[in-house]
Amino acid sequence: MADVGAEGGRSPLRVAVLASGEGTNLQALLDGVHGAEAEVVAVGADNPQAPALERARRAGIGTAVFPKDAYPDRTARDAAISAWLQEQRVQLVVLAGYMALLSADFTRTWSGRLINVHPSLLPAFPGIRAIQQALDYGVRVFGVTVHLVDAGVDTGQILAQCAVDLPSARHESEVHAVLQPLEHALLCDTVRRYARGQVRSDPEHPRRMLVD
Amino acid sequence: MADVGAEGGRSPLRVAVLASGEGTNLQALLDGVHGAEAEVVAVGADNPQAPALERARRAGIGTAVFPKDAYPDRTARDAAISAWLQEQRVQLVVLAGYMALLSADFTRTWSGRLINVHPSLLPAFPGIRAIQQALDYGVRVFGVTVHLVDAGVDTGQILAQCAVDLPSARHESEVHAVLQPLEHALLCDTVRRYARGQVRSDPEHPRRMLVD
Repeated sequence: MADVGAEGGRSPLRVAVLASGEGTNLQALLDGVHGAEAEVVAVGADNPQAPALERARRAGIGTAVFPKDAYPDRTARDAAISAWLQEQRVQLVVLAGYMALLSADFTRTWSGRLINVHPSLLPAFPGIRAIQQALDYGVRVFGVTVHLVDAGVDTGQILAQCAVDLPSARHESEVHAVLQPLEHALLCDTVRRYARGQVRSDPEHPRRMLVD
Repeated sequence: MADVGAEGGRSPLRVAVLASGEGTNLQALLDGVHGAEAEVVAVGADNPQAPALERARRAGIGTAVFPKDAYPDRTARDAAISAWLQEQRVQLVVLAGYMALLSADFTRTWSGRLINVHPSLLPAFPGIRAIQQALDYGVRVFGVTVHLVDAGVDTGQILAQCAVDLPSARHESEVHAVLQPLEHALLCDTVRRYARGQVRSDPEHPRRMLVD
């Protein structure tokens, strides 16, 4: 539950973003949601060179790096990430091109408060290189999914999806160019709805989320 | 290759339809394609009560029934269907709600000339009760696929797909009501393109079909 602010409205949702690379989804959140319904309060990365960190710094947002070789194992690293997120009183964690797998402890701790954006219409083509997987299969409709993260690979409950007809697509780069702006829009839209309290479980159906 | 007719155009493609039930996809072909680019010349069913047979008779189209218990096994039944289709000089076989699995001999004989329409965005939700599978998973985008049939269950090369946003759908019947007209349109469109010679393999990609 978001706090009620001084004006009687909700305080902005405190969002953290975990990234490994460019951070274009982070940038979309900074441009489209940050300072309105939600506040990006923390950006973490596994890779100290991730350009996402520089985007965060430019926006005056605190960053932290959790390099793989600084921890004995994934559980230890993820516990450190978790502790840091809790210190920042984070209410929602967004995976935005975060390439490391997360431990079961981490996904359990953040269950219902951890979302990912994936460039396919899940459950088709989970895991890495989803667009190439789809091209290799020969699909004609591509898409994007925003979903809650559970212990599986891209198996969590779906919050939003968006499809696009690309019957003649042949190359990953051309599909990526179409899907990337859709990822940005769908992620921002979902975070806004989450911040407004419009995302909740369906009491009649364990897999379904109600998103108003 | 279709024959060249007296007017210098192609002769209509000789199409057979196999059905088990209502035959609404057959009706769509009769209403939308029959007598134009294609001619439905034969309708087969495994079930003598299939209303699809009555639709065929009303349109003056020859029918045949291949009941399961009239043959020692699936291979024998499918061999009889194949022989009957060949007698009718069928060039394309459309599965339109045909619920029996086909033998590997049959799919090999008709390879590249056998298509199916399936109510999901394959490869997601192959097999029976695809819409209910999708609802159970909690997807928000549904769809329809027309594909070539190979020896697997809904694993053949995709010819056409069509997606539809139904983020609040809860019941199979409401999704079915939206998808059924899309099935009809996509199937008719694909048969038309096939009849015009616009469907061919992609020499650069074993899984992809080029559909102009």
